[in-house]
Amino acid sequence: MNFDIIRTGRAILHVTDLDKSRAFYEALGFIETASDDKNLFLRGIEEHNHHSLLLKKAETPVVEVISYKVRSEEDLDRLAAFFEKQGTKVKWMEKGSQEAVGRALRIQDVSGLPVEFYAEMEPAERLLQKYHLHKGAKVQRIDHFNCMVPDVEKAYNYYINELGFSCSEYTAGEEEKIWAAWLHRKPSVHDVAYMNGFGPRLHHVGFWLKDPMNLIDGCDVLASMGYGNAIERGPGRHGLSNAMFLYLRDPDGHRVELYNGDYLTSDPDFKPVRWDLDDPMRQTFWGHEAPDSWFEEASEVLDVHSNEKVKGSEPTLKKRKPTFVT
Amino acid sequence: MNFDIIRTGRAILHVTDLDKSRAFYEALGFIETASDDKNLFLRGIEEHNHHSLLLKKAETPVVEVISYKVRSEEDLDRLAAFFEKQGTKVKWMEKGSQEAVGRALRIQDVSGLPVEFYAEMEPAERLLQKYHLHKGAKVQRIDHFNCMVPDVEKAYNYYINELGFSCSEYTAGEEEKIWAAWLHRKPSVHDVAYMNGFGPRLHHVGFWLKDPMNLIDGCDVLASMGYGNAIERGPGRHGLSNAMFLYLRDPDGHRVELYNGDYLTSDPDFKPVRWDLDDPMRQTFWGHEAPDSWFEEASEVLDVHSNEKVKGSEPTLKKRKPTFVT
Amino acid sequence: MNFDIIRTGRAILHVTDLDKSRAFYEALGFIETASDDKNLFLRGIEEHNHHSLLLKKAETPVVEVISYKVRSEEDLDRLAAFFEKQGTKVKWMEKGSQEAVGRALRIQDVSGLPVEFYAEMEPAERLLQKYHLHKGAKVQRIDHFNCMVPDVEKAYNYYINELGFSCSEYTAGEEEKIWAAWLHRKPSVHDVAYMNGFGPRLHHVGFWLKDPMNLIDGCDVLASMGYGNAIERGPGRHGLSNAMFLYLRDPDGHRVELYNGDYLTSDPDFKPVRWDLDDPMRQTFWGHEAPDSWFEEASEVLDVHSNEKVKGSEPTLKKRKPTFVT
Amino acid sequence: MNFDIIRTGRAILHVTDLDKSRAFYEALGFIETASDDKNLFLRGIEEHNHHSLLLKKAETPVVEVISYKVRSEEDLDRLAAFFEKQGTKVKWMEKGSQEAVGRALRIQDVSGLPVEFYAEMEPAERLLQKYHLHKGAKVQRIDHFNCMVPDVEKAYNYYINELGFSCSEYTAGEEEKIWAAWLHRKPSVHDVAYMNGFGPRLHHVGFWLKDPMNLIDGCDVLASMGYGNAIERGPGRHGLSNAMFLYLRDPDGHRVELYNGDYLTSDPDFKPVRWDLDDPMRQTFWGHEAPDSWFEEASEVLDVHSNEKVKGSEPTLKKRKPTFVT
Repeated sequence: MNFDIIRTGRAILHVTDLDKSRAFYEALGFIETASDDKNLFLRGIEEHNHHSLLLKKAETPVVEVISYKVRSEEDLDRLAAFFEKQGTKVKWMEKGSQEAVGRALRIQDVSGLPVEFYAEMEPAERLLQKYHLHKGAKVQRIDHFNCMVPDVEKAYNYYINELGFSCSEYTAGEEEKIWAAWLHRKPSVHDVAYMNGFGPRLHHVGFWLKDPMNLIDGCDVLASMGYGNAIERGPGRHGLSNAMFLYLRDPDGHRVELYNGDYLTSDPDFKPVRWDLDDPMRQTFWGHEAPDSWFEEASEVLDVHSNEKVKGSEPTLKKRKPTFVT
Repeated sequence: MNFDIIRTGRAILHVTDLDKSRAFYEALGFIETASDDKNLFLRGIEEHNHHSLLLKKAETPVVEVISYKVRSEEDLDRLAAFFEKQGTKVKWMEKGSQEAVGRALRIQDVSGLPVEFYAEMEPAERLLQKYHLHKGAKVQRIDHFNCMVPDVEKAYNYYINELGFSCSEYTAGEEEKIWAAWLHRKPSVHDVAYMNGFGPRLHHVGFWLKDPMNLIDGCDVLASMGYGNAIERGPGRHGLSNAMFLYLRDPDGHRVELYNGDYLTSDPDFKPVRWDLDDPMRQTFWGHEAPDSWFEEASEVLDVHSNEKVKGSEPTLKKRKPTFVT
Repeated sequence: MNFDIIRTGRAILHVTDLDKSRAFYEALGFIETASDDKNLFLRGIEEHNHHSLLLKKAETPVVEVISYKVRSEEDLDRLAAFFEKQGTKVKWMEKGSQEAVGRALRIQDVSGLPVEFYAEMEPAERLLQKYHLHKGAKVQRIDHFNCMVPDVEKAYNYYINELGFSCSEYTAGEEEKIWAAWLHRKPSVHDVAYMNGFGPRLHHVGFWLKDPMNLIDGCDVLASMGYGNAIERGPGRHGLSNAMFLYLRDPDGHRVELYNGDYLTSDPDFKPVRWDLDDPMRQTFWGHEAPDSWFEEASEVLDVHSNEKVKGSEPTLKKRKPTFVT
Repeated sequence: MNFDIIRTGRAILHVTDLDKSRAFYEALGFIETASDDKNLFLRGIEEHNHHSLLLKKAETPVVEVISYKVRSEEDLDRLAAFFEKQGTKVKWMEKGSQEAVGRALRIQDVSGLPVEFYAEMEPAERLLQKYHLHKGAKVQRIDHFNCMVPDVEKAYNYYINELGFSCSEYTAGEEEKIWAAWLHRKPSVHDVAYMNGFGPRLHHVGFWLKDPMNLIDGCDVLASMGYGNAIERGPGRHGLSNAMFLYLRDPDGHRVELYNGDYLTSDPDFKPVRWDLDDPMRQTFWGHEAPDSWFEEASEVLDVHSNEKVKGSEPTLKKRKPTFVT
């Protein structure tokens, strides 16, 4: 590969009521960088770029794109050349066409997910040490995407072999097929995970917290503000990744994970960790089952070219969720 | 009242395999004060008395007594006189008849629960500042009992009016009847709680932890030692009491709560907090439902006079658990 | 004794600039119950009474009184009778003469400290579960007073023998004289501590936090708001009491301790813990020395009858601070 | 650059008593991978490589090398070619000559520090999820080196321009000269920091903890085992890096930092943060001064070719420590 994808960059989600969304995400501790009657730009307290979450007012909640930051403008050109050579149609978003972001490249990826790459984003003040402005769960930065796709092995092979991602952990399902995989560019457990299921859909966007107590603070503040219903699963500790987690559903049903405590995956000799799908400690190290909604519900995605919703397909592996044999 | 009950003192539980029990409770961080082939005496890291949990080897898991510490030997005499005057048969356990405990008084209480009172217990080294000996959830001290009884109002009235307990919080059920009540002598939320259900049974013994992170440490250590199945509910925050909780089932099914974070209830002008049974924030402030086992299962108790299991009765209030209308 | 002192109730401090004080205490997480141009009434998030800290606008920073809550109006009458019998002049503050407080009794105590007793205070909303209103160090409730007095043994004997306090821990100085003592009515380590030094002066008012992480949150928020200079000592763990601590100086130099993590002292058979003055683990379990200001500086106090500053005296024990022999 | 340095790898320290060192480092939570009467190999609970700290028995405590892990054997060859072209003498340690490590390259770097590069190290079991084996401060992994050098700008320029490091934060001293700089390869605040002072010397090796409470656990356990004297500074929060810190001195005086809570530095558009040397929030965000020993004392280093101690030089910038103007 002659291009360098750095990390998970931002997600653009369509939401039906910006005020409701603003109230929810600010309760969680997100910082509003800018907004108008169509857009709400949010960032975490550590972030020095303009936003990591862009909410756009729309009729229907859906995912416009998930975006990766690349090293330079040249990386964008090389990525475009690579995709075109492969027969993947690219869509350029010229600088100025999107607020706060430079030139961007969009494609529908191997799983049918809308993916964007950009190198440049306007700076914003880092509020990491403005502790008196930290609220709720004190969301620190974007960490990863988790996508539900019909063919995890296809996505896995493409992102590793063609785009230079590495695998940290994976779940083996039927006949040792990969049921789910955690892939990274930055040396954390993941920038993106793929999970077997009806898709392509975005399962959640994961945000990093500064410590495990902030998960508890997040629950307490959400509950005291009347958002108890938004808590779908957790807090708990993942077996896979070892991180503490909390899954929330925003007012439109988009899922957000608050996440803290994985590990460094910088080394080429790190051996991907294998988990069995039915291992009760895989999802929750403490043995709790996830609710069915967590396996079944996810956000639909748009086609970057037609702006229509992408029609999903049934997954290649039959099993939609683990069988708990505790 | 002319007697002074200080606090929850100890529980005596019958277990079927002392080695299994020892392994479990030591994983949680309990300290073993003494043991032989019939008895295992455990205490928390703060405790300066010999034990707060006595496990006795037996054929069947059952509760022998729940015990309160009183101020002096004279308080025991006055309690005995009070019970006898009321027609409640008392059983004296003379000093020397029980290891590490002075003279003790046993009765079958108004709910049919086996209750013991004692003033004297041998001292033990406090290990509060021997931090290198703290393990697991670092259990600090016994905090309370929770009992399932058929008639909560009867127990409530007796313990408040006759024994001098105060109510911190309660749950209102059908026709404003008390469905559950939290009563205290020490100025915390409770020394004992009563909950509507088939009984008399002991629902759980609660132990105080030093901070909320110890609940997470407890889960992590239990899970990594293979005790994931022991985690029945939590960690979470109670609406009622505001404490963080974790419910565990020991190898015989006895339930233990790890508990941290309630508040001071010393003031006579403190108004008991009322909760509606169906308030989704009552049990878990974050809105999680408790599993059915939590409402249905509890430990049977012995008759202090016959040493036979007490036969239970159906509760007076029909509702066995909340209806969640979230 | 035929009166029942329940607990540390409130402190009244004179400050020179109410706006500066308000900004500081609100940064710490105190809740403002009421205020006017002369008074600022503050409470912690758990407190159901109107205030635990009353700041009054004045020319000079000084302590007006430290106050204990008693069980009933009758306790006040009995306390007054007791003091008068002893020849201690009492001053009644009739109901209505002080905002939010019922009838109060004031005396100059055995050490020359201005002490108040009251049974009644107006209620206020408990904000314990309004998590979205918690800020800074999330101060939960008043816990204790610490006073510097010339003759600790005199205060010790009087509060234990005449007023019914118990000793949890103490520091032995020259010839086994008591250099400092921690005394309680509620079953915590202390409601009041006395320390050998030039006095009578108020060394600090201690407030309880909900967990150790709140000490760190408090430091972070104070520092990011420009109050770094207010941090005098800590965070650290006390050997004596085992609590985590943070000492702050308010804009007028009054000292506040944020405090979490002591233990239950309900039992009559609890043996007071003895520390040697020069034990390096006594003050800070981790061995850090306290700065000289901590030993030398304290708030002067008023005479409850003359409203003049009380003239201090040199302490009976020569040693003003430990000699560290680490 | 045509070589890829991944991260801080290991330090080799000479110590005078392996048993004393073992007791100290195990109290902190290090895991012993292997040992004999000359060597003690230690790793953190997350580490999948054999060791990150090698203690060798010797007459005098000194630093043998600080080591970086590179991507591949070819990177070693390219590094060797680069150094030789520059006239820097290289020393090859052939595979088999060092336990558990493949071929390694050693040089005396631009500051006179003994530096090693290696690509291969034997694997070890990751104990990240063996929570029952975690002790003390639960040291998770090696994070960084901090070196005291006479000419920080020389080191800064060399590591950035020649070896491909990036600067995250720096301290400006006299005439805007760089007084200290934090440089990284992995996207954290640093793999190595350089600080103005008599040198070359190793100031400390930094280890990552899983959360801020582990700093407090570390202090408590060290103190209760009698290692209170080992705590030199902290716990506190750095202004620079934002991390929580604790500085310890091992039995030979080598300094170890326990560290948690910096941020992601992956982006090429991240602007290095500038601090003024005399900013009281730089070292400790809360305003605490570091003790003089922290500025003056550091570990001497060996010459990789002669195995003699490197003779130090006075620093180019006069100021040895900040002037606090709080």
